[in-house]
Amino acid sequence: MPCIVGGMQIPSSIVRLPDQWFIVCHASTLRRRPVATVLQGSRLVVFRGRNGAPAALADRCPHRNAPLSAGRVVRGELECSYHGWRFDGGGACRAIPGLCGEPERHGRRAVAHAACERDGFVWVYSTPDAAPGGEPPRFARVDAPGYATIRQALSFPGTLFHALENALDVPHTAFLHAGLFRTSRRRHEIDVVVRRFADRAEAEYVGEPRPTGLVGRLLAPGGGVVVHVDRFLLPSVAQVEYRLGDDNHLLVTSAMTPVDDFVTQVWTVVSLRLRIPTRLLVPIVTPLATRILRQDRAILALQTQTIRRFRGEQLASTEIDVLGPQIWHLLTAAARGEPSVPGLQHEHRVRMAI
Amino acid sequence: MPCIVGGMQIPSSIVRLPDQWFIVCHASTLRRRPVATVLQGSRLVVFRGRNGAPAALADRCPHRNAPLSAGRVVRGELECSYHGWRFDGGGACRAIPGLCGEPERHGRRAVAHAACERDGFVWVYSTPDAAPGGEPPRFARVDAPGYATIRQALSFPGTLFHALENALDVPHTAFLHAGLFRTSRRRHEIDVVVRRFADRAEAEYVGEPRPTGLVGRLLAPGGGVVVHVDRFLLPSVAQVEYRLGDDNHLLVTSAMTPVDDFVTQVWTVVSLRLRIPTRLLVPIVTPLATRILRQDRAILALQTQTIRRFRGEQLASTEIDVLGPQIWHLLTAAARGEPSVPGLQHEHRVRMAI
Amino acid sequence: MPCIVGGMQIPSSIVRLPDQWFIVCHASTLRRRPVATVLQGSRLVVFRGRNGAPAALADRCPHRNAPLSAGRVVRGELECSYHGWRFDGGGACRAIPGLCGEPERHGRRAVAHAACERDGFVWVYSTPDAAPGGEPPRFARVDAPGYATIRQALSFPGTLFHALENALDVPHTAFLHAGLFRTSRRRHEIDVVVRRFADRAEAEYVGEPRPTGLVGRLLAPGGGVVVHVDRFLLPSVAQVEYRLGDDNHLLVTSAMTPVDDFVTQVWTVVSLRLRIPTRLLVPIVTPLATRILRQDRAILALQTQTIRRFRGEQLASTEIDVLGPQIWHLLTAAARGEPSVPGLQHEHRVRMAI
Repeated sequence: MPCIVGGMQIPSSIVRLPDQWFIVCHASTLRRRPVATVLQGSRLVVFRGRNGAPAALADRCPHRNAPLSAGRVVRGELECSYHGWRFDGGGACRAIPGLCGEPERHGRRAVAHAACERDGFVWVYSTPDAAPGGEPPRFARVDAPGYATIRQALSFPGTLFHALENALDVPHTAFLHAGLFRTSRRRHEIDVVVRRFADRAEAEYVGEPRPTGLVGRLLAPGGGVVVHVDRFLLPSVAQVEYRLGDDNHLLVTSAMTPVDDFVTQVWTVVSLRLRIPTRLLVPIVTPLATRILRQDRAILALQTQTIRRFRGEQLASTEIDVLGPQIWHLLTAAARGEPSVPGLQHEHRVRMAI
Repeated sequence: MPCIVGGMQIPSSIVRLPDQWFIVCHASTLRRRPVATVLQGSRLVVFRGRNGAPAALADRCPHRNAPLSAGRVVRGELECSYHGWRFDGGGACRAIPGLCGEPERHGRRAVAHAACERDGFVWVYSTPDAAPGGEPPRFARVDAPGYATIRQALSFPGTLFHALENALDVPHTAFLHAGLFRTSRRRHEIDVVVRRFADRAEAEYVGEPRPTGLVGRLLAPGGGVVVHVDRFLLPSVAQVEYRLGDDNHLLVTSAMTPVDDFVTQVWTVVSLRLRIPTRLLVPIVTPLATRILRQDRAILALQTQTIRRFRGEQLASTEIDVLGPQIWHLLTAAARGEPSVPGLQHEHRVRMAI
Repeated sequence: MPCIVGGMQIPSSIVRLPDQWFIVCHASTLRRRPVATVLQGSRLVVFRGRNGAPAALADRCPHRNAPLSAGRVVRGELECSYHGWRFDGGGACRAIPGLCGEPERHGRRAVAHAACERDGFVWVYSTPDAAPGGEPPRFARVDAPGYATIRQALSFPGTLFHALENALDVPHTAFLHAGLFRTSRRRHEIDVVVRRFADRAEAEYVGEPRPTGLVGRLLAPGGGVVVHVDRFLLPSVAQVEYRLGDDNHLLVTSAMTPVDDFVTQVWTVVSLRLRIPTRLLVPIVTPLATRILRQDRAILALQTQTIRRFRGEQLASTEIDVLGPQIWHLLTAAARGEPSVPGLQHEHRVRMAI
């Protein structure tokens, strides 16, 4: 899917991204027991090591391949339930019951991934036995003063690419979310400026009238022109931003985790500041956001089922599929481990009826 | 399975037949909503186009591969539920909401199959984007004056070949349908004449006494000699015909649809004319026919399970497997797209204890 | 896994053993109806032939591949339910209803396996259409005077190798069966002598104190030093033997059947002789044995799931994995059909904290 207009046959939009941080769970859910998780098809076990910091190992004991997640944490070490071998957060073997000698030896290491805690999430580095090349991405405005923060976690039955494109795609909102977000009547033609940088892409909607659906009327009862920018940030963040005047600000940030080829976990944070008290809005906005996410999940499930039944995908894009091709460009470059060239790499302008 | 006596190892008796018409549903079940179906492993969506005539498209939107069967029909066009693209019955893209320009372009076509309505069924042509080389087969005597017509639709868990052979096989009736159709006691040796033509094969049972089971006694209480011919008609019709004198006539025609490699949908029409009023017979014959079809379905399920467990089939035929080898000959020739040579191609005579 | 210390990557510890006897069912469960079973991935049907002796055929009719296990036994012959073909215990075709001629011919034979009855079990030879090279293994002390005999049958979700190693592995007992058999506290260092012969391997524990868990205290309330030998006997027998003085003797013999690559059926016979009346012990020992077997089954299920998820196994062994490498050596030699060299092939001594 490298070109904006046209189509291509790809077996499936699966990418595996090395050297990247991904969320594996809420920090609050990782307590005394080890937690089994999956990252890009790799089975992992996450637990809190000696200092309470998260640690992540491949979820199989190097001895007889029992899953370490079936074991228990003993003084910051993970003990296998089959023969009692113990591993520290770095994967070193610290105890082999019954053995008369030193437990530690190279062949007895558990494969380890870097892990850390930030913004209320546990993050794991995708490449095993490697020192991280950077820090996890940050959530802007999360729990910021004056902002209401709504968190949502949802498993999407689709590839990372399709989940990202869906989150940043405007044309589907008038159909899939008919009435909630946009309507297909009374369209206006506006310009969209599309830019791609080394590590992100964005679509800026110029002079967009306030969306006509329920969400738009709720957030800006008086109408007007909004500032609307959609962003993709490597490796897997989709961000939708709306501003109306100085007072009203909506930021929907979804950090996505490629769990398996066709399963993407979406960790969404909605940050909302309005002229009216945000506390009043949360009980209204939360079920709306849930409903929109579920509609997206349902169509992704159908799309993925179709892609699997047809044993591959064949995508015909038009110029109003503004961010999909840019996301695909950046994802495949990251999958190949290509170094990013700083600065603006690409810019074009598209006319869209919105 | 090319020879009458002997056996051969085939991975499985799967054939894919190009350029043929198959039934996909009863015409009465295709109304305002699109219907998802499968033909020879291809996922299709069937709907009624602008003039009410059936249309068939591959069941994926060329844009983002959502299934078109999840959409709706709007003024004879099929609208995708994801972004609202619309397609006519020929597969042309007629609308792309949000796009400032013409929707129609080659890469945006949906793959289309010829479709039509006949004898109460919707038929679809197996080769996509192709003009049909002929018309669908006809059901003889369906709803003819003086005939009772019973329709049955059943999904068989087996290949098209095994479903066809089963429908036309005589020796199994004394065992699988013991008592219902034939019994294994009191056998008579008779001659069977086997003929193969360009597009069909038949077995004529010469001087066959009236079948001894329940069905035979019901249809001809006085006994006698019947005229009995079993026929296979390309691509997938099995027909069993019995005549007793001028008044009694039974014609069981099964048009089969190869849904998937190991799933065959059987559309059976029983046409029945007897000296006694046929209206009285329908309530008796219908449950008998259902019971026989279910016994056949059960043994095909076991046969298919065994073939899959043994990763292929190995069939030892004898000379009383009269039509199986002829069906296989015609099916594989049709699968290779070989032109049919008119006239009688083969004839032989077999002795069978019946 | 050929070396004692170290590790290796094997796709999975699957072996297929030709020319061996395996148990397929209790003799008492094989009565008038044929029984479907699986041996090393091959689907078989077992039935009692003309003289009442067990017979085993491949579970598909050579005619149209229906499963013979769906048929019935008629005067010691197995009749297929589809067309009524009949086979004797050697696989010869004895009847083809409707055929005017001799039923027997080479292509109509059913594949046959040697079968016999011994020690209350039905045994089947793993190589089809072959005369057995020997007799099935015997269970020592089964139903011997003065011994209590407890039989257990359990399906283990793991390869034959992992089921065998688990049955003969000492270090896991202190963890997986904590409290029941051994405890991890108060360990003693003892010597283990490991020997491999042509057709078996054994580990002799020298000067082992009576096990500290519930089973040990039950069997020898007074403590003391036990004689403890663990044995693997080709093709698939694991035997654990404890003696305490002249009076107390515990023999746990598990004959294993490789049903499928990752399914092993374990037929266990516990033979027990104690100073106190064994009748009193059976109601206590039986639930204990059941609990231990279920714990083993649970960990094997987790181990197998992990091996499949990681698409292969990677085993790091230490010197206290005393029998696993010897079992693997003998199994792979037997799988290659290598002739066994008589006598002691290997001996070494290991220190273990027990």
